[in-house]
Amino acid sequence: MQKAHPLQLRSVFRFELQVTCPETGARAGVLHTAHGDVPTPVFMPVGTQATVKGILARDLLNDLDAKIILGNTYHLYLRPGHETIRKLGGLHRFMAWPRAVLTDSGGFQVFSLDSLRKVTEEGVLFRSHLNGDSHMFTPESTLDVQMALGSDIMMVLDECLAYPASHEAARASTERTLRWARAAYAHYRSRANGSQACFPIVQGSMYADLRRHCTEQLLELDADGYAIGGLSVGEPRALSLEMTETVAPLLPASRPRYVMGVGMPDELPEYVARGIDMMDCVLPSRNARNGYLFTRSGRVIVKQAQYKDDPRPVDETCNCYTCKNFSRAYLRHLFLASEISYATLATLHNLRVYLDIMGEIRQAILVGRFPAYLRSRRAASVTE
Amino acid sequence: MQKAHPLQLRSVFRFELQVTCPETGARAGVLHTAHGDVPTPVFMPVGTQATVKGILARDLLNDLDAKIILGNTYHLYLRPGHETIRKLGGLHRFMAWPRAVLTDSGGFQVFSLDSLRKVTEEGVLFRSHLNGDSHMFTPESTLDVQMALGSDIMMVLDECLAYPASHEAARASTERTLRWARAAYAHYRSRANGSQACFPIVQGSMYADLRRHCTEQLLELDADGYAIGGLSVGEPRALSLEMTETVAPLLPASRPRYVMGVGMPDELPEYVARGIDMMDCVLPSRNARNGYLFTRSGRVIVKQAQYKDDPRPVDETCNCYTCKNFSRAYLRHLFLASEISYATLATLHNLRVYLDIMGEIRQAILVGRFPAYLRSRRAASVTE
Repeated sequence: MQKAHPLQLRSVFRFELQVTCPETGARAGVLHTAHGDVPTPVFMPVGTQATVKGILARDLLNDLDAKIILGNTYHLYLRPGHETIRKLGGLHRFMAWPRAVLTDSGGFQVFSLDSLRKVTEEGVLFRSHLNGDSHMFTPESTLDVQMALGSDIMMVLDECLAYPASHEAARASTERTLRWARAAYAHYRSRANGSQACFPIVQGSMYADLRRHCTEQLLELDADGYAIGGLSVGEPRALSLEMTETVAPLLPASRPRYVMGVGMPDELPEYVARGIDMMDCVLPSRNARNGYLFTRSGRVIVKQAQYKDDPRPVDETCNCYTCKNFSRAYLRHLFLASEISYATLATLHNLRVYLDIMGEIRQAILVGRFPAYLRSRRAASVTE
Repeated sequence: MQKAHPLQLRSVFRFELQVTCPETGARAGVLHTAHGDVPTPVFMPVGTQATVKGILARDLLNDLDAKIILGNTYHLYLRPGHETIRKLGGLHRFMAWPRAVLTDSGGFQVFSLDSLRKVTEEGVLFRSHLNGDSHMFTPESTLDVQMALGSDIMMVLDECLAYPASHEAARASTERTLRWARAAYAHYRSRANGSQACFPIVQGSMYADLRRHCTEQLLELDADGYAIGGLSVGEPRALSLEMTETVAPLLPASRPRYVMGVGMPDELPEYVARGIDMMDCVLPSRNARNGYLFTRSGRVIVKQAQYKDDPRPVDETCNCYTCKNFSRAYLRHLFLASEISYATLATLHNLRVYLDIMGEIRQAILVGRFPAYLRSRRAASVTE
């Protein structure tokens, strides 16, 4: 490489809580990472395979001003392989992304493979979806992979149950997740290099008692931050929010809280209102590619004939490159013609909507107007 | 649209010849168009369906500093339709491209359809590759389509023969092309708005006598510029150059000369050495998407295992975004993972190689060193 990004570690991981909304418990803060500061609450674009699908690293920087993105350990482990990425200077340099990266543990992907995996006490045995080869993820090994990747925030291996699950199955699974978290954290403490944080994940399916139990046990790890996993697995939305309401108040105020895999734009303020600081979801980018564009006043299904001659931008209130330069008619044309640039323009827009919403939420919290903001968003989403 | 590009017509079309190489006949000049000046010799990236595949309009502006691109009348006529584009402010505004556009006549695509078309004296009847609907292109109608698109340079309808063709078939076809060109130019003169230029196309298969005859006849039109078509249809490369050598000296020095559909990087100086000012080809963008990257010292077939851990950029001498930020290993990974951003990065690079070569050629002509440049390129391509 001719020109490398500055990869010096600027500071160890630290969460700074700035403002807590007295009415809702919504928080504004800053994640200080080795690759820059991340104002929270934050939505993390998903960069599964060392790229956010459809856009470039410079688009994430210049168009979206994203401060942190998510990488998928499962995918990077299989291809190109974490040792290859380590050799090439780590994930940040590999993908020319100088800011923060959070990597998941690979657990969620492995548990999505269904017939291709087998859970044991040691970890989870699975077959690659690429070529059928057998692989094993243990609490220790997935952290080793993430250390090779060099992410700023690593996640511990957890077991993700499908919904619904019996209380008995959920209890057994939660206990395994706890044992794995303890093993992972012991490994993390023994290897910690001061620049990578590590979050355990609260499981417990949709059972409040298991969620509380899991949370209390994980608190003993005095972790850098805590995630709530096992949501967005097909349960009713009210239940996901209920589980969040059960867990969040038990978590220490001084640590960031991350709800994994949510959500639709109108869910973002709801999770923030329940004390959540971090979220991620493939929805904005995946929906973009599938022709589903988000706006402040509803969705635009871009292939619809009503947009054939529509000279308006996707969202007249949006300042993204797409909305400032192109019509719905043009995007519809590119979509129907299967043009690659459609995916780029659509992804730039949808991610901008998510990041703008999070920016508004943070600003509302900082100036003490979050409850009013939340009410207005709820009213708007009812009428849409 | 919230923000439109300035679409005021700045000037009528005019070609300014700056320098002619006394040894080779290579020319440097400027095409003055209603959408800006185009220094020549120029390579025009192909934007088939109102987008250069894989990249954005701003990439063409900011990364490549392209001054002119090509649009395909056949594709835009069928989808989204020229009337839709006219309604939306013309092709420039539709695709947010403020600089010059050349549109072909649609003839080349129609003649590539083979079984789907029928040539008559009036024009060519064909079936849409999208839905099988019947359509007719006449010399007049394809110009009307291009007027609706609002391109800066329009091409007249010509008949493209497959290679090889008998002299008799080629003669008949050349005569038809001539009749069509006269009809088209009469139509153009009656509708000319002062901002759109129109080029007829020299045909004649690989027969020098027919090429000469066709050229002499077309000169009577006193056209804005002249194209040489019917090359790159499968003939040996020496024959394409020979036909160019036959035609170019007959064309008026005061008019731009455009060879359609060429070529490989090492062909660019060869055509310039034969007095050609304009070229276009899908090779750089199509090869990019297929994993074939051009460098100054040969090709990089990106999927090859030799690049698995290769930290070097595609071309260490290249200043494109791709080469300044990403390794061959990263591009290989994105290619194997079928990531959209691979196509973008690869296209940015390959087009940059082409535009840089043309920039070097122009500079060499301006400073009187083109013969030396040509010799060095020929020597390099022999050893590659």
